[in-house]
Amino acid sequence: MAPQLDGYFKQVDKLSESFIERLRKAVAIPSVSADDKRRPDVVKMSEFLVSELEALGAHVESRPLGLQPGKKDLHLPPVVVARYGDSPEKRTLLLYGHYDVQPAGKSDGWATDPFTLTVDEKGRMYGRGSTDDKGPVLGWLNAIQAHKEAGVEIPVNLLMCFEGMEEYGSEGLDDFIEKEAKPGGFFEKADAVCISDNYWLGTKKPCLTYGLRGCNYYSVSISGPGQDLHSGLFGGSVQEPMTDLVRVLGTLVDTNGKIKIPGINEMVVPVTEDEKSLYADISYTMDNLYESIGSKTGVYSDKENTLMARWRYPSLSVHGIEGVFSDPGAKTVIPAKVIGKFSIRTVPDMKSDQVDQLVFKYMKDEFAKLGSKNTISVELMHAGNWWVTSPKDWSFTAAGRAVEKVFGVKPDLTREGGSIPVTLTFQKATGKSVLLLPIGSSTDAAHSINEKLDRWNYIEGTKLLGAYLHYLAEEGMKA
Amino acid sequence: MAPQLDGYFKQVDKLSESFIERLRKAVAIPSVSADDKRRPDVVKMSEFLVSELEALGAHVESRPLGLQPGKKDLHLPPVVVARYGDSPEKRTLLLYGHYDVQPAGKSDGWATDPFTLTVDEKGRMYGRGSTDDKGPVLGWLNAIQAHKEAGVEIPVNLLMCFEGMEEYGSEGLDDFIEKEAKPGGFFEKADAVCISDNYWLGTKKPCLTYGLRGCNYYSVSISGPGQDLHSGLFGGSVQEPMTDLVRVLGTLVDTNGKIKIPGINEMVVPVTEDEKSLYADISYTMDNLYESIGSKTGVYSDKENTLMARWRYPSLSVHGIEGVFSDPGAKTVIPAKVIGKFSIRTVPDMKSDQVDQLVFKYMKDEFAKLGSKNTISVELMHAGNWWVTSPKDWSFTAAGRAVEKVFGVKPDLTREGGSIPVTLTFQKATGKSVLLLPIGSSTDAAHSINEKLDRWNYIEGTKLLGAYLHYLAEEGMKA
Repeated sequence: MAPQLDGYFKQVDKLSESFIERLRKAVAIPSVSADDKRRPDVVKMSEFLVSELEALGAHVESRPLGLQPGKKDLHLPPVVVARYGDSPEKRTLLLYGHYDVQPAGKSDGWATDPFTLTVDEKGRMYGRGSTDDKGPVLGWLNAIQAHKEAGVEIPVNLLMCFEGMEEYGSEGLDDFIEKEAKPGGFFEKADAVCISDNYWLGTKKPCLTYGLRGCNYYSVSISGPGQDLHSGLFGGSVQEPMTDLVRVLGTLVDTNGKIKIPGINEMVVPVTEDEKSLYADISYTMDNLYESIGSKTGVYSDKENTLMARWRYPSLSVHGIEGVFSDPGAKTVIPAKVIGKFSIRTVPDMKSDQVDQLVFKYMKDEFAKLGSKNTISVELMHAGNWWVTSPKDWSFTAAGRAVEKVFGVKPDLTREGGSIPVTLTFQKATGKSVLLLPIGSSTDAAHSINEKLDRWNYIEGTKLLGAYLHYLAEEGMKA
Repeated sequence: MAPQLDGYFKQVDKLSESFIERLRKAVAIPSVSADDKRRPDVVKMSEFLVSELEALGAHVESRPLGLQPGKKDLHLPPVVVARYGDSPEKRTLLLYGHYDVQPAGKSDGWATDPFTLTVDEKGRMYGRGSTDDKGPVLGWLNAIQAHKEAGVEIPVNLLMCFEGMEEYGSEGLDDFIEKEAKPGGFFEKADAVCISDNYWLGTKKPCLTYGLRGCNYYSVSISGPGQDLHSGLFGGSVQEPMTDLVRVLGTLVDTNGKIKIPGINEMVVPVTEDEKSLYADISYTMDNLYESIGSKTGVYSDKENTLMARWRYPSLSVHGIEGVFSDPGAKTVIPAKVIGKFSIRTVPDMKSDQVDQLVFKYMKDEFAKLGSKNTISVELMHAGNWWVTSPKDWSFTAAGRAVEKVFGVKPDLTREGGSIPVTLTFQKATGKSVLLLPIGSSTDAAHSINEKLDRWNYIEGTKLLGAYLHYLAEEGMKA
């Protein structure tokens, strides 16, 4: 029997102005986790969530995470955990979101004050955190409120985990999740996990995301002289670390992104027919790529290869060099120690440790070919694993039906090239299905200036999140 | 007849404490030309020189240079010009020095306050400008004073040109020199020019410098996307400007400094036997190199090749890259536009324009080999010509005899790898011999923290500058 959702949908429409007010209040709190001085605002944002959730009748706890590592007197913001419904007859869904935001200031180039929600005539709601991730988090709260006020029962129990350090490495969260997922923990009863913290591929068609690439980030340091030298006085008489570095960095990848480190590409699982079939239907064109990169300098000229390159093949980017002259103008320095930074996006079935060993060996071999007296050292700076799940499990099926109900289209089944490390943490800790269910669009400019969430995405997204709960209950009954 | 210098030398020794006081007063004026806020101090330093020179009985003029280009209300500091002696029977020597200094602050790592002359037990006098170039400038004033007080006549007329913008590109000075060197100008009567603004090759043996390399500084810009991209979202699907850039920069020069741009090395004049003979006597060892670079990563293992590589062969250094991630830590950015900076030190008979054309063509050819859709642009940022003169003309001969008289050794005849553009300006404007006659040592750390001038160099240097005037007069009589 199809869920009866008309009453809920009408109530969402009726409450839409108050939902926008809720977002306005949240955006007004500059909960920037990367800025120590803003920490009281991050805490204030956690208190806002606690009070909103309590007003909805949820059981809420604000869980301290202790001092921030490396800081003397700075406490991490709390994790806000909540429970709404605790019926043994219902399935339990664990929701994750974050209430901290990226830094923002008018001086960065914002057209409006980043901490004042500003809605334009097209319904674009500008403000830091509007789409990343205050809008989606409040979407869940809106869904609860609309159910309550419409008198429609939510057919699943909800657990919530809202953190305040996502934009600064989710300090302390992994341990917390692992502990709370164990017997006796707050998340013990979760049957599935849903995260709404990414974006659609375009602007009109929702997607369900079933995979993320990992990222192994390396530094390669080459040093020679004891201090920076003047190129006039010493140029020609010393071996220069920077000329060595550009040459070894130049051996990593070709113009079309093919990684030249032996053994890397061999670890990638071949594309199956089943997988290939997922790409054909995806609503994406080369013009979408050109619009988002601002140029026509893509590697491929077709949609399938472009998306596969972003989602299911590894890539290698050289991000920069530390220790060199990097300002505008001219400076005649021979840098004494230069540190190249590059990363490899990893995919199934690449083993992180094996990738490291291949990288270390290759860099040392290439450096040895130069015959330089300088010294090289290659290090892994950080690594996060790739994640892929089945886009056909009960939670994805439920979400797909909810998308069809609200938007009248089948969702794109997508992967993402970037990483959301908490996804893997939840999957490992709970052993359950994890679904990424975004409501923001590709044009939302998360992390950038003029971040926004469209009113349409926020309100229809709230409908989607609520509808998903009903289809999830129904799929759960079949299981 | 050998000049009688004993009375002068004794007077220098007798006045040495007052000479150190003079340097102390000068160092106390923070005449940092690169810092707009310090401009009043630069002007104050010019006034100090004017008053010291007037007290010695010189005719002094403070010549304005107008507004600083690109600044609204900021006047350039004046050029202090002076005349001491105006006898038609005497030869006339034009002296150049500068009274501005590099920036300095305790926070940079200075062991003492940079603007308080601090003399340690070994006679090392620490302070910004002590060796570059207040000490040498005051050396000339000391020489005049000691002659006066010893009752010894200076056998040449002196003209002086002391500028206050040397550490910031000598803004406005070239035009001034060209004008004043013409008939009717202040420098019209100059028979030779002497500049004391460089350093000995070591710490004990003076040198006379007869050549400087030039410098052509280039930027190579590669751009693709319209804005920086996230490497997770786009890595693998776009061609990355940074991977193109490290590859083209990697084609410029090999590990041992050999420039790989066809045509460059072919322009270099071959070493003659006469030139080669100059290198054998030079007081320099590989340990001197290793000490000054702080490592054993030199290209050559012998003195001659090392010095030739620094002085008379071209070199190419990659200084840095603008537009990339250059901070500590990890950032997953695909930079949209990256600008490599490199320079070529030029030597006889390299033609600056031809070098440019070879560089432009080579970079474009190497980039074309990559088959990239990105866009390259190569530009010359600035160029300064090399300078070489005969180390055997009357002024060098006089200076060589003065060194033997004061220090009991024949000076090293050296070139420098760096450039002092005003040298070429004076030579072109006056058509006369230009001599570089340093008094500071290789350990003085000009432009660095803990800049110093040894008391011994300052006092014996003052003797050298004075003695040179006598030998110059004698050589002038022969000519």
